[in-house]
Amino acid sequence: MDLNADLGEGYGIWRLGDDLALLDLVTSANVACGFHAGDPLIIRRTCAAAVDRGVAIGAQVSYRDLAGFGRREMEVDPEELCSDVLYQLAALDGMARSMGGRVSYVKPHGALYNRACRDEEQAEAVVAAVTAFTPAASALPILTLPGSALARVAGRHGVPTVAECFADRAYTPEGTLVPRRRPGAVLHDPDEVAARAVRMAVEGVVTTIEGGEVRVGARSVCVHGDTPGSVRIARAVRQALLDAGVVVGPFA
Amino acid sequence: MDLNADLGEGYGIWRLGDDLALLDLVTSANVACGFHAGDPLIIRRTCAAAVDRGVAIGAQVSYRDLAGFGRREMEVDPEELCSDVLYQLAALDGMARSMGGRVSYVKPHGALYNRACRDEEQAEAVVAAVTAFTPAASALPILTLPGSALARVAGRHGVPTVAECFADRAYTPEGTLVPRRRPGAVLHDPDEVAARAVRMAVEGVVTTIEGGEVRVGARSVCVHGDTPGSVRIARAVRQALLDAGVVVGPFA
Amino acid sequence: MDLNADLGEGYGIWRLGDDLALLDLVTSANVACGFHAGDPLIIRRTCAAAVDRGVAIGAQVSYRDLAGFGRREMEVDPEELCSDVLYQLAALDGMARSMGGRVSYVKPHGALYNRACRDEEQAEAVVAAVTAFTPAASALPILTLPGSALARVAGRHGVPTVAECFADRAYTPEGTLVPRRRPGAVLHDPDEVAARAVRMAVEGVVTTIEGGEVRVGARSVCVHGDTPGSVRIARAVRQALLDAGVVVGPFA
Amino acid sequence: MDLNADLGEGYGIWRLGDDLALLDLVTSANVACGFHAGDPLIIRRTCAAAVDRGVAIGAQVSYRDLAGFGRREMEVDPEELCSDVLYQLAALDGMARSMGGRVSYVKPHGALYNRACRDEEQAEAVVAAVTAFTPAASALPILTLPGSALARVAGRHGVPTVAECFADRAYTPEGTLVPRRRPGAVLHDPDEVAARAVRMAVEGVVTTIEGGEVRVGARSVCVHGDTPGSVRIARAVRQALLDAGVVVGPFA
Repeated sequence: MDLNADLGEGYGIWRLGDDLALLDLVTSANVACGFHAGDPLIIRRTCAAAVDRGVAIGAQVSYRDLAGFGRREMEVDPEELCSDVLYQLAALDGMARSMGGRVSYVKPHGALYNRACRDEEQAEAVVAAVTAFTPAASALPILTLPGSALARVAGRHGVPTVAECFADRAYTPEGTLVPRRRPGAVLHDPDEVAARAVRMAVEGVVTTIEGGEVRVGARSVCVHGDTPGSVRIARAVRQALLDAGVVVGPFA
Repeated sequence: MDLNADLGEGYGIWRLGDDLALLDLVTSANVACGFHAGDPLIIRRTCAAAVDRGVAIGAQVSYRDLAGFGRREMEVDPEELCSDVLYQLAALDGMARSMGGRVSYVKPHGALYNRACRDEEQAEAVVAAVTAFTPAASALPILTLPGSALARVAGRHGVPTVAECFADRAYTPEGTLVPRRRPGAVLHDPDEVAARAVRMAVEGVVTTIEGGEVRVGARSVCVHGDTPGSVRIARAVRQALLDAGVVVGPFA
Repeated sequence: MDLNADLGEGYGIWRLGDDLALLDLVTSANVACGFHAGDPLIIRRTCAAAVDRGVAIGAQVSYRDLAGFGRREMEVDPEELCSDVLYQLAALDGMARSMGGRVSYVKPHGALYNRACRDEEQAEAVVAAVTAFTPAASALPILTLPGSALARVAGRHGVPTVAECFADRAYTPEGTLVPRRRPGAVLHDPDEVAARAVRMAVEGVVTTIEGGEVRVGARSVCVHGDTPGSVRIARAVRQALLDAGVVVGPFA
Repeated sequence: MDLNADLGEGYGIWRLGDDLALLDLVTSANVACGFHAGDPLIIRRTCAAAVDRGVAIGAQVSYRDLAGFGRREMEVDPEELCSDVLYQLAALDGMARSMGGRVSYVKPHGALYNRACRDEEQAEAVVAAVTAFTPAASALPILTLPGSALARVAGRHGVPTVAECFADRAYTPEGTLVPRRRPGAVLHDPDEVAARAVRMAVEGVVTTIEGGEVRVGARSVCVHGDTPGSVRIARAVRQALLDAGVVVGPFA
């Protein structure tokens, strides 16, 4: 099982989360590429720290929206979105390579993630950027929700996808995430989150918000790094997985 | 002899100069990388048009200053400047490759160009970005003024440089450019500019502002594209060089 | 009848349209406030030129989106949108006052205009900014489409609205604009546009795209300035109105 | 004696310092205006919190440099700089007024502060913005170092200035600040800083880095908010001033 987290999400003088602590816990780093966060110096240092720890580097591509941290949905023309994603992907890869690493997967950020999970047009734009960066035969895998529009579109174009799950988020009986605004949508207890991660990894199921079970096939667990207590949760998840005999390592 | 010009210097809805007309005349395109101009869609289209015409693509790296078009000198910390340059270089190269080309040289833009010509610290930052992108043995050449700090620093690090000259700018007896604000600093007559380009290419000399001659060894002539009449000047220069039997082609 | 146009829509080195020519024709200038276009120097010069000509200054408030020229719809939180609009309005007013003028109305730009015409939540945010700037009793009028959500919301809060019409756009039988992508949506012939403007001003009707007539009550005609030929159209509209005996002057 | 601190220096998702804790201690808030930090929503909330506490609001105007937090010196043309400062000042004032306050002074930020203290050209631009905002007879006071170029230029134009001192910075025998890079330039012990603030307020002198004394006439003490421990220092300074019988209140 892989553990992924968003990293390098500062900008200029500002920082978000404890990147170094998280890098000691996760196996894949979704590195911000400059459009929602991440200036070039932060990107380079984040890549260096990831390479030092053997953590895989992913391009956390986003809408161009610093003021909104990439969390505001935008009506971006597909051709423009494709270019924006390609630009970020190429920039991050060059910086990762200068530090001895490389980009080994792509994960859209925030509003683009959500949009590409349900909108085939924007999903096509993301996939087009990935295949423009390297041909489909050697295309970078995209980290996304199983069954999403992005997963479908990627499949049609021969781009591999890797399914992720969220141990700290409530699931509906249909296997989708309960929207953040609903009560109980986000779990905060490290032990509970860790136990869910273990069930997801070992049994491939999770208890839904209604008490039943739903199947969640995933090769990566997303942990968050921008909230207080998030490092503690990540540590608990990692330790619980190891204690359960799960092999923790990057998928890429 | 190579002809280089700044290209792709629009942003969003805005355009600057007649890119397609210039691309039919020059042999090297200094493509804006997004920090002073050039959004990803413009970059990609500019790269596509350059590749179509066999025009070499150079990374026109800049300070981060859209509002000032990269023409305002900034006190940027060298480590940050190096990262900024590397980010732009990598982004442009990825986009060029997606269109079947690649970045084959680097030319700093505006205030960074001027600063790196006289300030070894910022010159070191630019050169560090170039060697971080590809090791010195295969480093991209830097297009700059002969004798500049940037040329010296590049030489010390084993990075090749290519000298350029300016057919539409007045020269001092020392072989430096007459500052833009001085009367007569910029020449506007296409025939005069073209005649100077030919002397530079054939004899390696130019008439100074004081009437004497000074040696100008250069493998590339810079032509401008952002002023009215600039396309006419570029066309005159190209035609005059061809008429004089000079081989016009990219240095890279 | 008032004639309004978007002005000051350059940024840094870039320009859009022939501002001075338009300022000699229109009676109300929708001045860009810096979020989709318009840096402070351009804003100040545009205000100065408007004041010189007795042209009313309106705040052309927008989403924060330079790269997309404010034309991309964005999911901005209402409280944030209200603050963004207030910031632009206040900045422009201060600059207009420094040149002897003042902001005398508000007109949302691009995607915000369209969104606020149909979405009451974002319309509320715009109106809240207007009433935060000056209390409702002395609130600036908002220039918008008659019958829009923005007009309704403004009415509920006691904020005056001024209706505008578009002489160069095709109308549906319901009196709404035909979407730009549909063939025939935009008219380009100066004489035809001018004739439509006169009918709108004198009779309050316009011929629809289907050949019938629809009522269009408006105190301002919007003319465009960013396309080739747009100045000629604006001139034709102004002249035709004057020739028809319509008094042309600012509503504000 | 007045206590001033930089506030509202977050942007989007990012925060810097503990604004609410500082607002309970200082009497003047230098509020970021959006060019180096401070988006409209943060500005508005900061103004609201300042008004609630009776803290005076100052415009912390800056170069346009989010990535460098306004700390990088820039060669900005004076006319452009004047417009940039006026834009920020007007925007902040409008937002402060919407919350029941107003801007009552101006303090340049970071690199602009330092530059305007020694460069009369940029100082002229700042003063021109202040007098453009309100005529000299009622111009807002500028908070600056005594004896600086900005103080001189302001004096020539009839703009009042208020002198500030830095209790946590070492002084030279000439009464200037020891540059940050020199050892001992910044003091970190709350008690020592507080004791210096008291001497500055009561006796108008401070011990120099060489052990002697130098006169420091100031009506405001600047305390910092962006470093760990800074709130503790601010609290110690305020308490020590009160204990020494100094009246603590805004100058404006």
